[in-house]
Amino acid sequence: MRTILLILEYDGTAYAGWQVQPNGLAVQEVVEKALAQILGRTVRIHSSGRTDAGVHARGMAAHFQTETNLPIKAFREGVNTFLPQDIAVREVREVPADFHARFSSQGKWYRYTIYQNEVRSPLAARSAWSLRGTLDLDLMRAAAGHLVGKHDFSAFRSSGCMAKTTVRDIFSIDISSDKELIHIDVRGSGFLKNMVRMIVGTLVDVGLGRRPVEDVAILVAGTGKMVCGQTAPAHGLCLQEVWY
Amino acid sequence: MRTILLILEYDGTAYAGWQVQPNGLAVQEVVEKALAQILGRTVRIHSSGRTDAGVHARGMAAHFQTETNLPIKAFREGVNTFLPQDIAVREVREVPADFHARFSSQGKWYRYTIYQNEVRSPLAARSAWSLRGTLDLDLMRAAAGHLVGKHDFSAFRSSGCMAKTTVRDIFSIDISSDKELIHIDVRGSGFLKNMVRMIVGTLVDVGLGRRPVEDVAILVAGTGKMVCGQTAPAHGLCLQEVWY
Repeated sequence: MRTILLILEYDGTAYAGWQVQPNGLAVQEVVEKALAQILGRTVRIHSSGRTDAGVHARGMAAHFQTETNLPIKAFREGVNTFLPQDIAVREVREVPADFHARFSSQGKWYRYTIYQNEVRSPLAARSAWSLRGTLDLDLMRAAAGHLVGKHDFSAFRSSGCMAKTTVRDIFSIDISSDKELIHIDVRGSGFLKNMVRMIVGTLVDVGLGRRPVEDVAILVAGTGKMVCGQTAPAHGLCLQEVWY
Repeated sequence: MRTILLILEYDGTAYAGWQVQPNGLAVQEVVEKALAQILGRTVRIHSSGRTDAGVHARGMAAHFQTETNLPIKAFREGVNTFLPQDIAVREVREVPADFHARFSSQGKWYRYTIYQNEVRSPLAARSAWSLRGTLDLDLMRAAAGHLVGKHDFSAFRSSGCMAKTTVRDIFSIDISSDKELIHIDVRGSGFLKNMVRMIVGTLVDVGLGRRPVEDVAILVAGTGKMVCGQTAPAHGLCLQEVWY
């Protein structure tokens, strides 16, 4: 039995998220069908985690097990010919038998992109949250400083989150700008459901002067007396990389 | 009578090009309908030129005449509310009565984007030409040097081109790279039908070592004894700016 790791890129616009579910087409489903074409039988793939409907990925990781003797490159070149234009296998690696895309993960990097302008951008419409008003990036960086480290992030998860523990370790949050585009790069050990989007929504509230930097310190203190900001829209989010 | 200039951005993926035509929806049509909502009557807009099906724009210029007293910002804020997500008015200016988006133009800047990698990129699929193999940018720059200046570009126009003269002045061709993305920025007085895409296709042939740099010098000499390279696909092209 071989264990194969796929690194996938996709434009999530057309999909109901990563995971197979009753309503709408999932990325996982499309990848499993393409793999079945190569393997001649159905296969279940296991990802590093889910992405919500509309979220993109440059480096989603997913593994599967197979008894085939196919050369490793068949899982890139071959599978890509059966995938639509908005999904592709970027890399393939053979990994040890005990590898698991979710449980072996050491951390993840998410990038959130904001397009800051008076007028929305058609060319950035699929990949950036269009925002009017001017964000104060220094205030946002000060607020982000309170989030970095090991904290209880129970204030930053959506109601449907089923994680047993809510403590997560955020390695870094970097905020940079390139003309109208603002990138918020969040790296951490793992994330609760909607956590990155809720962090971004809260940082944006701070950047627009709608709430003070100190609120973020209170939110991570986890007294439960304060709620975090809006959940930033899915289409600005991209899973950049998963580390093993 | 007032003359109003619109600067438009659009993702051309869903459109049959700029100009109204019998088959498929044109960007011009969609903009005219949105304007009609604001003006309460139909209006014809005149652009700086056409863009082909699938070509994008960050700075398409188009003017129209109107007797309305509406404030100038109505033509941005107001019209944008009636435009789909893939088209937007970026800027509006009131211009002199003798202004014409096409005839008053002093030049244009087109950007062509190539995604150079073994694997195609789903996130760049709408805006870049995906190419395998490694382009030699220095060879391409040497070839581009033969194109800059005032030349007869009859070898670089498609069969449907109806321009009376084929002499055009190319101000500059800049080739730059940013990781997997290669940008070819072409600035000039004006362009023949498919000229930029045929220039890019020819430069790519040179960059891949399929034809020598000297071919480009022969092509612009216009002896008619040589044909240019492939026409690069539409979706990599973007009209960045029109100068007045």
